[in-house]
Amino acid sequence: MKYSEYKEHLRKIADLETAIAVLHWDKEVNLPIHGAGPRSQQIATLSGMAHEMGTSEKFGQQLQALSEDQSLSKEEQKNVALTLKDYTRKKKLDLEFVLAMSKATSAAYHSWRKAREENNFDPFQEPLAGLIELKKQETDKLGYEEHPYDALMEYFEPGARVADIDILFKDVKSQLTLLAAKIREKSNIDNEFLYQKYPYQKQWDFGLELLKNMGYDFDRGRQDVSPHPFTISFSPMDVRVTTHVDENNLSSMAWSCIHEGGHALYEQGLNIENFGLPLGQATSLGIHESQSRLWENNVGRSRFYWSAHYSSLQKIFPDQLSSINLDQFYQGINKIEPSLIRIESDELHYHLHILIRYELEKALIEGNLKVSELREAWNAKYKEYLDVEVPDDNHGVIQDIHWAHGSIGYFPTYSLGSFYAAQFFEKAKSDIPGLENQIAQGDNKALLDWLRKNIHQHGRMYTANELCEKVCGEPLSLKYFMDYAEQKFGEIYHL
Amino acid sequence: MKYSEYKEHLRKIADLETAIAVLHWDKEVNLPIHGAGPRSQQIATLSGMAHEMGTSEKFGQQLQALSEDQSLSKEEQKNVALTLKDYTRKKKLDLEFVLAMSKATSAAYHSWRKAREENNFDPFQEPLAGLIELKKQETDKLGYEEHPYDALMEYFEPGARVADIDILFKDVKSQLTLLAAKIREKSNIDNEFLYQKYPYQKQWDFGLELLKNMGYDFDRGRQDVSPHPFTISFSPMDVRVTTHVDENNLSSMAWSCIHEGGHALYEQGLNIENFGLPLGQATSLGIHESQSRLWENNVGRSRFYWSAHYSSLQKIFPDQLSSINLDQFYQGINKIEPSLIRIESDELHYHLHILIRYELEKALIEGNLKVSELREAWNAKYKEYLDVEVPDDNHGVIQDIHWAHGSIGYFPTYSLGSFYAAQFFEKAKSDIPGLENQIAQGDNKALLDWLRKNIHQHGRMYTANELCEKVCGEPLSLKYFMDYAEQKFGEIYHL
Repeated sequence: MKYSEYKEHLRKIADLETAIAVLHWDKEVNLPIHGAGPRSQQIATLSGMAHEMGTSEKFGQQLQALSEDQSLSKEEQKNVALTLKDYTRKKKLDLEFVLAMSKATSAAYHSWRKAREENNFDPFQEPLAGLIELKKQETDKLGYEEHPYDALMEYFEPGARVADIDILFKDVKSQLTLLAAKIREKSNIDNEFLYQKYPYQKQWDFGLELLKNMGYDFDRGRQDVSPHPFTISFSPMDVRVTTHVDENNLSSMAWSCIHEGGHALYEQGLNIENFGLPLGQATSLGIHESQSRLWENNVGRSRFYWSAHYSSLQKIFPDQLSSINLDQFYQGINKIEPSLIRIESDELHYHLHILIRYELEKALIEGNLKVSELREAWNAKYKEYLDVEVPDDNHGVIQDIHWAHGSIGYFPTYSLGSFYAAQFFEKAKSDIPGLENQIAQGDNKALLDWLRKNIHQHGRMYTANELCEKVCGEPLSLKYFMDYAEQKFGEIYHL
Repeated sequence: MKYSEYKEHLRKIADLETAIAVLHWDKEVNLPIHGAGPRSQQIATLSGMAHEMGTSEKFGQQLQALSEDQSLSKEEQKNVALTLKDYTRKKKLDLEFVLAMSKATSAAYHSWRKAREENNFDPFQEPLAGLIELKKQETDKLGYEEHPYDALMEYFEPGARVADIDILFKDVKSQLTLLAAKIREKSNIDNEFLYQKYPYQKQWDFGLELLKNMGYDFDRGRQDVSPHPFTISFSPMDVRVTTHVDENNLSSMAWSCIHEGGHALYEQGLNIENFGLPLGQATSLGIHESQSRLWENNVGRSRFYWSAHYSSLQKIFPDQLSSINLDQFYQGINKIEPSLIRIESDELHYHLHILIRYELEKALIEGNLKVSELREAWNAKYKEYLDVEVPDDNHGVIQDIHWAHGSIGYFPTYSLGSFYAAQFFEKAKSDIPGLENQIAQGDNKALLDWLRKNIHQHGRMYTANELCEKVCGEPLSLKYFMDYAEQKFGEIYHL
């Protein structure tokens, strides 16, 4: 196989996979109710075809041969090496196992839905236990050097290791629980003004303005409405975001637009020349999340960002906001309060939600925790780390869909995203003099250019760790996030 | 191959083809401007895969063997026979020819775009001539018994033959030109009230009401906006329509909703059990068009239909319509006036537009007309049949996209649709006592049930001709359309 043939083959797989992405997008945004059955079948058929094309024995042999071709450029070699790595990993799971996993996941998902309806973990227990057993087998099949959980994280965060994440979360546990506890002692901020009536259309229009201002290119994407906001890419030329508008909660729409916009800028910033190839793909979920959270929190919940946008927000909603000044607004959107639900959490407690899930998942995979003990363990940790009592399972152990999807090893990437974000933004500030002032003038160009150049364009050329070293000159460190958090919330809460 | 394997294979092809349909729908309704390139590539890749799956030698041998299996039910045998027929036809065109045709079509399309921009047929002439030459070769490769044009009509209207269509259009020429000429002598109707300002949202809402009232199932479809209205099916469980709203023209939206609604009811009425199989497909474009036109014209431009809907239309648009009574409205929406543009034509002159195209296409394929003579021939026929002078090529020979797409033999299906519609509706009226009264009460259920039972559910079990014989007890005859037209317009125009 010539490199051009390899490229052509991968391009075809990408055309299929992005067609599947269009089917998914349409399912979330447009699908009439009775269209769901045929749509699942359609997606299954196309997924099977894409899988076959990517795992045939012949393709494997061709890849192996091509990977030894020294005449390829450095970039070409990297593409082939990464494709071979993906191929080899996929081939470790035989068809019988894949089918068993698919069946177990389907059972877990349906029982989770039932558990949610009944607000009771019990129906989910047995299917989840079955799934965990298979996940353990999966770690054996995939192989690992130190910890079985490493094999699962590899799906989402290539190169991430329990040894490193443990150190990170040990600091989260000691430093962040302390900071959060200190804040909880203080009298809290009034952010009731966020929960007035904010009419739909005006919120929608304002969200579009925020996206445009970030640099999201509407000639290469669009925004629609879906129950849960998400970003999806069909190619760097068509990266779509969705949002959700709650007329009684301004924050639901605004920061979901900024968050998804951050994801979308990453996808729009991948090199179109590499579309379909590994170097045209995001390097990890952690780095993806770093882009959404950098925009959402480090930028989008900063005082300098709202210096640029708050007066126009006030003009759009004079009845709701004319009596609230910028300081009050800034404090309101940064209110810290422990919650039971991860996705409703503030910026700090969020990582305690993740810490809990990480510890529990790891223990399940290690065999140090049984699914039958999961509810109790969950509730105890929420009491210990967040000082909240879990009243029922919907507000507890069955709140997230991830386990029902068989996604174990996914949660840590959310926290990694925030920690990378803080480190990257600090570096961007030191590289770009007056960056915060520019953003305060409504000018985000320098920041976007910096992200394009340092992060987006590389695709999978570097792992998350390598990228961090390359951009920041040092590996990921919690220090930057803690500095950011202590300074920002220290000031807001007069600590 | 067992029948179940055949079914599975066809289902996979259908999953691919309907995925392509979703990509097309999304392209027309949603696509950001820079998404067009990757989308074309995506569609090309999936189309290639679907083509391969449907034309492999192995599949052909399996089909042949299965077609001799006497243990299959009558329906199963019919499915296999039709698939084998499609397969055999596809295999008559070798890859070299398919590629040459694809190249010629692409050249024709681009030069047609250029010709449209310049309002000049000249740039389109040579590519069109090349395309016609290939089309002649195609008729030889496909084979035919009597007339080469038969081989091309077979794509759109299986079983249609020049020998029959000639007889039909001979009557169109003698009878319809006469009726139209008689009407043109009369003083004309005032329908200026249709061209007032009709606000977007109210038109949109009214269009949805009309669709619901017809029986279009919004749990198995949706309506969106696109430049040119169309209907597209992803399965009987998801059949979508689009419309176009012109704030200065009420008729643009209303009758396009009813027209596309008629197409959609056919697709929603196909048997889901046969999804992916020939018996789950529409039998011909003529029959498809009979469904849209029966609803649009025989029902949707009738006085009884508007007895049910006009008062609510007046309530929605009191400023525009309160001084227009039902009679004036009914006459206004049935105004007859010759036009230069087919798609803007009234119900009668429409078939003269088609007659002209049919005569010209046939002559081109016979070799009795050169492309270099086409403009002159076009203009002469418009003078002769419609008594209008063609002022320029955009209002003449290059107005339609069909030839630029390589669709020769398509146009007659539009007229066949109207003629079948008149015959079917006459039969429905005789089968359902008081049908017009029911529709005048806003109740379309009996009509829809009749269409479902007599037409929709059969799919390709019968050709258009066979279906007409089965439903009406006689073959297609222009008589029903002429009776309808003479009665309706005789009354409106006091002939």
